[in-house]
Amino acid sequence: MSGTLTHITLARRPAGAPVPEDFKLVSEPLPIPDTGDVLLEVTHLSLDPYMRGRMDDVKSYAPSVDIGGTMTGQGVGRVLESKTDGFNPGDMVTGMTGWASHACLPGSELRKLDPTLPPTTALGVLGMPGLTGWVGLHRFGKPKAGETLVVGAATGPVGSMVGQIAKGMGLRTIAIAGGPEKCRLATDTFGFDAAIDHRAHDTAKSLRTAIAEAAPDGVDIYWENVGGKPLEAVMPLMNVHGRIPVCGMIAWYGGANIAEDNQLPAMWRSILVKRLRVSGFIIFDHWDEYPAFLSDMGPKVAKGDIAYLEDVADGLEAAPAAFIAMLNGGNTGKQIVKL
Amino acid sequence: MSGTLTHITLARRPAGAPVPEDFKLVSEPLPIPDTGDVLLEVTHLSLDPYMRGRMDDVKSYAPSVDIGGTMTGQGVGRVLESKTDGFNPGDMVTGMTGWASHACLPGSELRKLDPTLPPTTALGVLGMPGLTGWVGLHRFGKPKAGETLVVGAATGPVGSMVGQIAKGMGLRTIAIAGGPEKCRLATDTFGFDAAIDHRAHDTAKSLRTAIAEAAPDGVDIYWENVGGKPLEAVMPLMNVHGRIPVCGMIAWYGGANIAEDNQLPAMWRSILVKRLRVSGFIIFDHWDEYPAFLSDMGPKVAKGDIAYLEDVADGLEAAPAAFIAMLNGGNTGKQIVKL
Repeated sequence: MSGTLTHITLARRPAGAPVPEDFKLVSEPLPIPDTGDVLLEVTHLSLDPYMRGRMDDVKSYAPSVDIGGTMTGQGVGRVLESKTDGFNPGDMVTGMTGWASHACLPGSELRKLDPTLPPTTALGVLGMPGLTGWVGLHRFGKPKAGETLVVGAATGPVGSMVGQIAKGMGLRTIAIAGGPEKCRLATDTFGFDAAIDHRAHDTAKSLRTAIAEAAPDGVDIYWENVGGKPLEAVMPLMNVHGRIPVCGMIAWYGGANIAEDNQLPAMWRSILVKRLRVSGFIIFDHWDEYPAFLSDMGPKVAKGDIAYLEDVADGLEAAPAAFIAMLNGGNTGKQIVKL
Repeated sequence: MSGTLTHITLARRPAGAPVPEDFKLVSEPLPIPDTGDVLLEVTHLSLDPYMRGRMDDVKSYAPSVDIGGTMTGQGVGRVLESKTDGFNPGDMVTGMTGWASHACLPGSELRKLDPTLPPTTALGVLGMPGLTGWVGLHRFGKPKAGETLVVGAATGPVGSMVGQIAKGMGLRTIAIAGGPEKCRLATDTFGFDAAIDHRAHDTAKSLRTAIAEAAPDGVDIYWENVGGKPLEAVMPLMNVHGRIPVCGMIAWYGGANIAEDNQLPAMWRSILVKRLRVSGFIIFDHWDEYPAFLSDMGPKVAKGDIAYLEDVADGLEAAPAAFIAMLNGGNTGKQIVKL
């Protein structure tokens, strides 16, 4: 099959926010499929925030796009020619086509679409964004009926999925979105109980007041995909044992709007990119595990298998000075006062 | 029984680091136990970093100490008089005695000590700090043989417990401690594979280089009880799927050493005090859940029970502009390019 493949390549790495000059439209002859390959005409291409990260030459969870390389991305398309079983011309399929008019991919990397559903659903509500919301909410958000969920970027394909699943499970759902039109969509189309326009609030504090009014029982789950002002606004409203699934930080992509001394964005980026699990805990919640601990560790301490050190201050009057020294790292082992 | 009870009260709330004038030694007649109570003479008192938080009038996970109130704390002591079954004069017990020479507490709030173990172990290695290490490591650190663990304040009663349990489970254990003597104790007494003196490093970057040398395979678990420089040093060394149990942030107690624009300490404090679970995740790790997702959500989308919105840009050439607009919140729903 002859013809032209048009694709969009990365012309240069963006400095901060991408501009049109960072991209380049390039044409070349249509590739000829090898055995096992499928040639397809792309009908729809997905654009997703994660692609911003691929434009930087920074170690992340996926390789960068090379300069001159095709921008990566998922697409849906129609099979033109198949050199593998299971795919026939005319079949609608999805795969990592890149930003391109055509793609030639191994059949093993393509998935046939359900013909009863619109093909674009494979890119959004039933694609990577939908899966993100579904997996992240169930696995990391652990929603329970009666709880309160706050969702950033709430009309987007991830946030709207999260909100609708949670609403169906009996949570109170609060959308944060930009502008009155998105807020209207959040409540009317996606069923959020309340929607807050972050553009109507200049400061995190003002935004916080609005969220607090919509969340009178505090926030149990904060769906974090934005960073910046919404994160700062919501954090103090979190309830004890709250959960924060982190799948993005679009406000901080490109490094803009970050105060020089603010270590938070770098930390948050690590949490996201490294898929870290940061768990605050207070031991007073766990006294019920004391008997199990004692039966595990007591014999080991008695046998001398577990070492311990004690720093002993002498007399009750010595307690304040010993305490002050301990806060400055003056102790070595367990600080005790002998009366 | 007549006599004098001496206790240490909170004279005033500290401004930053506590000073001796924040405490006051007070005496009063010995209390007379009611039915159900036990009067005890305190022999040893525990001093723990969490007590710093109790000195502030800030909503936290436990009530503040009132001005004029006895500093809270766990002690061990000898029963002088018992008005309840199960306790007899001479018994060694532990409970929340406060910073005091004597305590009169309900028998239900006391625990008899194992006479085969030194009584002070109930305050440290087999007390709250030991339990903190044991629960936190197993439940939130989820150690696996062959992994690498970094522990802050490593010779302290929590850190030394964490290091020894992990070492016994086959992890590589790296101590961070202040000064050569503590580093020697970390390796010689507590069996850490390596110990790094944070005082020998002026900057987080220099400390990071030293930790990286000791952790050639990166860091899987960072036991975070310090904040500040060690946290900044370790974070970029974390491996994918790393775990950070957060049970303290002694470097930031009192609010010192925090740059004005740095939002990180406040965030970390919320994670600790609210016992939050912050989970970074990347959906590309979870494609194996796609079939389950599709069978759950596919029919709901087909029936119209799940709403979705698409923003459609027209033509491949429109992709860069649509992408740039999306990063600025210009889209409402899923951004798609129709080719």
